[in-house]
Amino acid sequence: MTLDLSEYITQVNVALNEYLPKRAGYFKTIYDAMHYSLEAGGKRIRPILMQLCYEVVGGKESIDAYLCGIEMIHTYSLIHDDLPAMDNDDYRRGKLTNHKVFGEAVAILAGDGLLTEAFHIMLGDALAHGGIERLHAAYLLSEASGVEGMIGGQVLDMESENKEIDLETLNMIHLNKTGALIAAATKMGAILGGGSAREISLLEAYGKYIGKVFQIVDDILDATSTMEELGKPIGSDVENHKNTYLRFYSIEECYQIAEDLTQKAVALLNQIDGDTKILEQIAMELIKRRN
Amino acid sequence: MTLDLSEYITQVNVALNEYLPKRAGYFKTIYDAMHYSLEAGGKRIRPILMQLCYEVVGGKESIDAYLCGIEMIHTYSLIHDDLPAMDNDDYRRGKLTNHKVFGEAVAILAGDGLLTEAFHIMLGDALAHGGIERLHAAYLLSEASGVEGMIGGQVLDMESENKEIDLETLNMIHLNKTGALIAAATKMGAILGGGSAREISLLEAYGKYIGKVFQIVDDILDATSTMEELGKPIGSDVENHKNTYLRFYSIEECYQIAEDLTQKAVALLNQIDGDTKILEQIAMELIKRRN
Repeated sequence: MTLDLSEYITQVNVALNEYLPKRAGYFKTIYDAMHYSLEAGGKRIRPILMQLCYEVVGGKESIDAYLCGIEMIHTYSLIHDDLPAMDNDDYRRGKLTNHKVFGEAVAILAGDGLLTEAFHIMLGDALAHGGIERLHAAYLLSEASGVEGMIGGQVLDMESENKEIDLETLNMIHLNKTGALIAAATKMGAILGGGSAREISLLEAYGKYIGKVFQIVDDILDATSTMEELGKPIGSDVENHKNTYLRFYSIEECYQIAEDLTQKAVALLNQIDGDTKILEQIAMELIKRRN
Repeated sequence: MTLDLSEYITQVNVALNEYLPKRAGYFKTIYDAMHYSLEAGGKRIRPILMQLCYEVVGGKESIDAYLCGIEMIHTYSLIHDDLPAMDNDDYRRGKLTNHKVFGEAVAILAGDGLLTEAFHIMLGDALAHGGIERLHAAYLLSEASGVEGMIGGQVLDMESENKEIDLETLNMIHLNKTGALIAAATKMGAILGGGSAREISLLEAYGKYIGKVFQIVDDILDATSTMEELGKPIGSDVENHKNTYLRFYSIEECYQIAEDLTQKAVALLNQIDGDTKILEQIAMELIKRRN
């Protein structure tokens, strides 16, 4: 059976357009710039993981505000990462990057806007609903995307360019730069759905394992795939003298590590009562992905 | 009697160092960069206004998390505004701008970090305290600093450079770029302090009036003061072909408008039962400021 997430992708896309409608008038430019990157064909893996974990623990209401929140924060981070002062990438997912279309100044502000509106949307929802879970979820996202999470990992990654770093530092980069947001997605879903402490902990750990798989496969793909497959120039990590797992392991060893982590992630899911079939399939697919 | 806000400034500075302590280790750089701009000698006018409005309506607990939140968001906006892609300013308050010290990439991320940590700090506090007021205050700040507030105003300002804009557009720029955050400060203080709907509305309106005075005086100072007084190169607005009030009014007329707005702000304060003496003094001082 192949994994079909199109229903979930549609849910996320509909929610994004509802929570962040297009605008004419004074604020047209900034909305256009934010939408351009939101619509650039992301896989929506973070909000999908959140929704699935929410369902696994029995959540039944809409958590669209938080699905949008995490995808908007992920998208802002890509816009800023692509800037000339950072990775200086012209293409992302086969499309021109935000600053190539709107200019650097608007791209910086579109990133700021997505980050700010993510909280605006989540906190508006938390206010309307009351209860502690939704506020807790927004708090977790602020933590995972902050300076001791995604942003800190990005700074550490930049500082490590052209340097010989040890494996511990590389793991620290990955844990924070990409891992924190993926683990936040699964944990937020479990909390929003009213999961038990044990369920929350298991699903968060699942997120950490697959987040690491995601990063290892990213490193492999950057070194081996074609531009057509990847939608951005290949080998840009090497060109930017980034540290990747391939500096420490062969491709075969990388796949073995990713395989072990995937097995651990699946073993965690087996300890949960709810239906974790799709989460299991996602873990298995991540290691096979080609873009 | 001269206005002495040093006690409040100290309160804000102590709170900033408590909520955002310095760090060694992996995340040292990003913390250093954030602290550099936070410590660059701002007047702390937004958190002070928040604290004063909080006290006016009878608030007695600590709202330090929100004082920090608004100052951090103000500071991030300055870091990003100063970037080469934006205003390209080398100096701010007499000190080198963030990107001149830490480089563009870290400056972008320091701004992102301050914005994200502002919400992290406020939401952590809201979670610990419970109740709706603190969540409401964080929500208001996300609105005022978002794309239909500060960020939208900044984009509109950039788009208006080198263009003949009408007074309505200029007012729209100022209302959002600087006014929204100042009005949010006073409104947040009133809400956090449990003010009545009438008090909240009066103090928000007071914030809107003095926010406009602040901007008009900014425009005048940019055109007339010396670099030593202002801490940044003078005339940079004219050099960047920015639209200011001086394109529509003489300096004398600007001061008359600011004077009228100040009187209106003070008249609002007179309708409030609490002790509004310092808020009144701030309104009177704003129009007299020289830097």
